[in-house]
Amino acid sequence: MRVMAGPQLALAVSKAGGLGFIGPGAKPEDTNTDLATARELLGRTSVNNPVISFPLDGTLPIGVGFQLWNGDIQVAERAVGQYRPCAAWLFAPSKGQPELDEWTTRLHQASPGIQIWVQIGTVAEAVECVQSSARPEVLVVQGAEAGGHGRKDGLGIMSLFPEVQDAARESGIPLIAAGGIADGRGVAAASALGASGVAMGTRFLASTEARIKKGYQDEVVRAKDGAHCTTRTMLYNQLRGTTGWPEQYSPRGIINQSWHDYQAGVEFDELKRLHDEAERSGDQGWGPEGRLATYAGAGVGLVHSVKDAGVLVAEIQTEARDILRGLGDMYSHGQ
Amino acid sequence: MRVMAGPQLALAVSKAGGLGFIGPGAKPEDTNTDLATARELLGRTSVNNPVISFPLDGTLPIGVGFQLWNGDIQVAERAVGQYRPCAAWLFAPSKGQPELDEWTTRLHQASPGIQIWVQIGTVAEAVECVQSSARPEVLVVQGAEAGGHGRKDGLGIMSLFPEVQDAARESGIPLIAAGGIADGRGVAAASALGASGVAMGTRFLASTEARIKKGYQDEVVRAKDGAHCTTRTMLYNQLRGTTGWPEQYSPRGIINQSWHDYQAGVEFDELKRLHDEAERSGDQGWGPEGRLATYAGAGVGLVHSVKDAGVLVAEIQTEARDILRGLGDMYSHGQ
Repeated sequence: MRVMAGPQLALAVSKAGGLGFIGPGAKPEDTNTDLATARELLGRTSVNNPVISFPLDGTLPIGVGFQLWNGDIQVAERAVGQYRPCAAWLFAPSKGQPELDEWTTRLHQASPGIQIWVQIGTVAEAVECVQSSARPEVLVVQGAEAGGHGRKDGLGIMSLFPEVQDAARESGIPLIAAGGIADGRGVAAASALGASGVAMGTRFLASTEARIKKGYQDEVVRAKDGAHCTTRTMLYNQLRGTTGWPEQYSPRGIINQSWHDYQAGVEFDELKRLHDEAERSGDQGWGPEGRLATYAGAGVGLVHSVKDAGVLVAEIQTEARDILRGLGDMYSHGQ
Repeated sequence: MRVMAGPQLALAVSKAGGLGFIGPGAKPEDTNTDLATARELLGRTSVNNPVISFPLDGTLPIGVGFQLWNGDIQVAERAVGQYRPCAAWLFAPSKGQPELDEWTTRLHQASPGIQIWVQIGTVAEAVECVQSSARPEVLVVQGAEAGGHGRKDGLGIMSLFPEVQDAARESGIPLIAAGGIADGRGVAAASALGASGVAMGTRFLASTEARIKKGYQDEVVRAKDGAHCTTRTMLYNQLRGTTGWPEQYSPRGIINQSWHDYQAGVEFDELKRLHDEAERSGDQGWGPEGRLATYAGAGVGLVHSVKDAGVLVAEIQTEARDILRGLGDMYSHGQ
């Protein structure tokens, strides 16, 4: 979720019994600011997480995400060393597994006890990662339903997850399912596939704590039919001037007028002019007739309202638990 | 599964506690031949299906699939009227919901009590179907992971299914999940999403009863990394000379040399010549260096051996049940 997941959101999730992550900032140093804020907020509150227990050694009960291709490993080392987030999530190296290995090793050294989560989107990436020398603590398996940037060549989590699980089984590394999961049904389904947990982004774009513009958030709530209203395209990166992503990634977002005009053959310069104009119009820049990037996953059609992150975590956990208890009961008859 | 699911496979599945379907034949009249064979086979055996009970009125304990755009409704009426399959699965109309309505109404009349299953692949199709006058008994929700033909604009079942469920909830029509499900993990996950059952194709291509060439079946067993080894393309339809599919559909299949050459810019005439040559070579025509269409879903990487269909059904049901019992137990602690 990049800048949209700040310290307020991350802490709210962890306090409710999830594990919140601060996303990568607009520039590497922003992570320090966010972690300092989290540390300060934490001083004024307490975290009594029923799922995850934290050692009383000053570890922060939240994780932090790093986007490797434009990250700064020295800044990251200092950040995790100083603020002690319990986990670091590594994504999108430009130089593949060796780059992941280097970050894993150096962050482990900078903050002993930190859990390294590595996000992958293909079976091949998973195999390479679990066979590498620098062992992460967790693999995040991201399906093609996910919003924002992911593998161009990914596929639905229903097929991807079990195949990654088979490939990674011997390593014993726990797997987290990501992509297209936005409520308790998805969590229950991921559990049934064998996931140790799920990662949710899009659902938390519509949380009160998300660092997101109202126009963007309104559009996440409005959008229906995630398969039709979202697509993977580099267009919005180009309009925003975001360049440099390694070529194996592309982002999923909600389509709007920029996309329709692009499909209709409108020249890029004109699209860019209209985009920049929309940018100056504030919240009206988003929406079906808007022109601004609205990165979101295919589960966006399951998001219908903005809620406190803590309420979301509790509701989703309860729904998933009820589903699994119910199915367990059903299949225990006549055991 | 079209011609690959014949009466032997359908009956084996139903005898093991599933519900087997005969796929559409190469031409409409083939369905009659297949149903006659099923009737004859059934006379020599008994079906004691623990999941589905059949009335003792001569209903066949198997379903039959119809591909509407090139089907013949009169042939279909006579087939279901004469042989009484318990269900008919309707897919791929060229004229949308009105065509589905006509088939639903006329097959209901031709064989009172027959269950009409309608396959959809988008939220919009689901909404149109449940609001139509000719109510089907079951909706099959097909995700983009599925093999063979499906919606071009589909998406992973993890997001699609819950959104269809919400849209169809008031209708009370049960939903079957399809696409990318090849073992008990997928069945358990689909159950957790809220599916009343699952439809599996690719897994049963590797059954002893499938009407499939050995070269094709070998390739289904060999293929790994379903996201990478399969793709949606019209190329193989063109090479085979299969024309006429409504434009909203495209097939997923395992990529091979035809695809690689096509990507490399080899002219179609040359691809066609090599394809037809491969066709004459028998089982060697399939495989990574082969050139023949190998339609299969993204779950193909979960298929590792050929087994009897009855064994598959039993194994998959047991695996799914064990998963759901285990999770139910886990979440019932401290209830």
